[in-house]
Amino acid sequence: MTQASNKPYHVVAIGNAIVDVLSFSDDAFIVGENMKKGTMCLIDEDRAEALYNKMGPSTEVSGGSAANTLAGLSSLGARTAFIGKVFKDQLGKIFRHDLQAVGVEFSTPPAETGRSTARCLILVTPDGQRTMNTFIGACNELYENDIDAGLIANAQIVYGEGYMWDMDCTKQAMKTAFKLAKENGAKVAFTLSDVFCVQRSREEFLSMIEHDVDILFCNEAEVRALYPEDDFPAILDKLQGKCEIVAVTTGDRGSVILTKDGRRTHVDAVPVHEVIDTTGAGDLYAAGFLYGYTHGMNIRECGRLGSACASDIITHLGARAQRPLTRLLVA
Amino acid sequence: MTQASNKPYHVVAIGNAIVDVLSFSDDAFIVGENMKKGTMCLIDEDRAEALYNKMGPSTEVSGGSAANTLAGLSSLGARTAFIGKVFKDQLGKIFRHDLQAVGVEFSTPPAETGRSTARCLILVTPDGQRTMNTFIGACNELYENDIDAGLIANAQIVYGEGYMWDMDCTKQAMKTAFKLAKENGAKVAFTLSDVFCVQRSREEFLSMIEHDVDILFCNEAEVRALYPEDDFPAILDKLQGKCEIVAVTTGDRGSVILTKDGRRTHVDAVPVHEVIDTTGAGDLYAAGFLYGYTHGMNIRECGRLGSACASDIITHLGARAQRPLTRLLVA
Repeated sequence: MTQASNKPYHVVAIGNAIVDVLSFSDDAFIVGENMKKGTMCLIDEDRAEALYNKMGPSTEVSGGSAANTLAGLSSLGARTAFIGKVFKDQLGKIFRHDLQAVGVEFSTPPAETGRSTARCLILVTPDGQRTMNTFIGACNELYENDIDAGLIANAQIVYGEGYMWDMDCTKQAMKTAFKLAKENGAKVAFTLSDVFCVQRSREEFLSMIEHDVDILFCNEAEVRALYPEDDFPAILDKLQGKCEIVAVTTGDRGSVILTKDGRRTHVDAVPVHEVIDTTGAGDLYAAGFLYGYTHGMNIRECGRLGSACASDIITHLGARAQRPLTRLLVA
Repeated sequence: MTQASNKPYHVVAIGNAIVDVLSFSDDAFIVGENMKKGTMCLIDEDRAEALYNKMGPSTEVSGGSAANTLAGLSSLGARTAFIGKVFKDQLGKIFRHDLQAVGVEFSTPPAETGRSTARCLILVTPDGQRTMNTFIGACNELYENDIDAGLIANAQIVYGEGYMWDMDCTKQAMKTAFKLAKENGAKVAFTLSDVFCVQRSREEFLSMIEHDVDILFCNEAEVRALYPEDDFPAILDKLQGKCEIVAVTTGDRGSVILTKDGRRTHVDAVPVHEVIDTTGAGDLYAAGFLYGYTHGMNIRECGRLGSACASDIITHLGARAQRPLTRLLVA
């Protein structure tokens, strides 16, 4: 049985507040635009405009890694709150609506000056892989004083995304939140987010994993970037025991979960009829896992629920569940 | 063989420029909100705000009936242009992008004052049926002088939606466009749009069908509203011969096409694995049909392509094709 406390919020997360703009594309477009398939690239507003003009017809769905995880948790029935920054524009309203509509508390006020709500231009290739280009916009306006200490004090788990390390202000806000979490006896959960993200902040991530993180989410490519000298089994050996839990997703091969007691639990992926868009697969794995963790499930059950949530999200465009995930709890 | 001319645009359409906000809901919500399932209701900004706050997490996809038809036509390879009015806001940019990205010419300038870009709040029930609530916003700012006479003169078909009859200014713009079409030897195509729409403008629609329309698109419920005294076979008898072509869609039973020569062509629906969302099914039927009509197909082929396009669109959320429809031409 995993641990849980009686604090009112199962998970409070701090993350980038982003609306995804999703479009199907072929591999040639990815190559032609010098993108690295399957990763996230930060772009400025001019590049966002230029790329958008080249992209095909799109669908807008609220996104943001940690926000996706909370939306999944809330859809499963957990109590959650989000801290992040939108601008006071139409996309900001959409982002706020979509979190609140699924039951996530979100009261960080919007930025009144500066840049517009963040957008992630996502190209989805025929293999279902997503390649992301993020204009970070108003996310850059999240500061330490946006971290609501009352929320953190009432959280069982405080969750953050590696993406926050790409900007000084958001990194500082995240560190403040993790510090408050520790002081209040909350668990610290963290996702490595992206290969490039790991490369940019490798030393800091290694130190955090060693000292701060209780539950680490990552995929195979990210841990390979974390320990570039080693092969995958050696990497798992290195990670084992560093945190209470390390959950490494390995795409359609499922996930492997390393626990402090030295056990290694392999969990299969849940097969789907057709993979449409893998955007949010990792975020929803974390959602299912953390729901299980905060609801007394054992590690294998946590992993299985993570797999089930990840499989649900890859059958349609976008990283937010289109129908309540509670049906996965019955199965 | 159907007729076509050598004019550069296969279809020029005038319509409402709307971004759809789609959300899954149960039937109880539809009943509780006093909506009439399967129809379109006009709402003001306050009601739009209140309803949005009650709706679940949503997905935004560009919409608008005639715009959907053009996007489908363009995705098939036709040359098309759209006339309609957005506001100079984020949703207006999204609407414009999604038309231009699929190859539809759209140069009507955005409104600089007045209300925001139109939104249609769409509840999709588990049976795939869609119930629409439209805040018409900037669409109300389309006037006669927005009708580009040069575009109309270069069109083989000028297409309009019954929805335009709900406002005086757009009705007048549409009438001007149809008059220019007649003067320039273009065919006039028209969709009855919605049951309530037919009820509101019944006498005018009957007169237009008699005198102005060459190609009429409608569904069974709409023609029943047009001739409320009659049963379906009697209605078809009344419609037969009134226009060069009357295409009546009948949901999963396909469509029946009435031609001036007295023939009645039945076309089956194309079965799908799972119906997710019927938003845009009629619009895409019209797209496939008009592509066939302007590319030398016979009536049965036109109807079959219409059915294939309609089936494609109901397998995902939203009324715009997510992948190029040209693959339906190969089949």
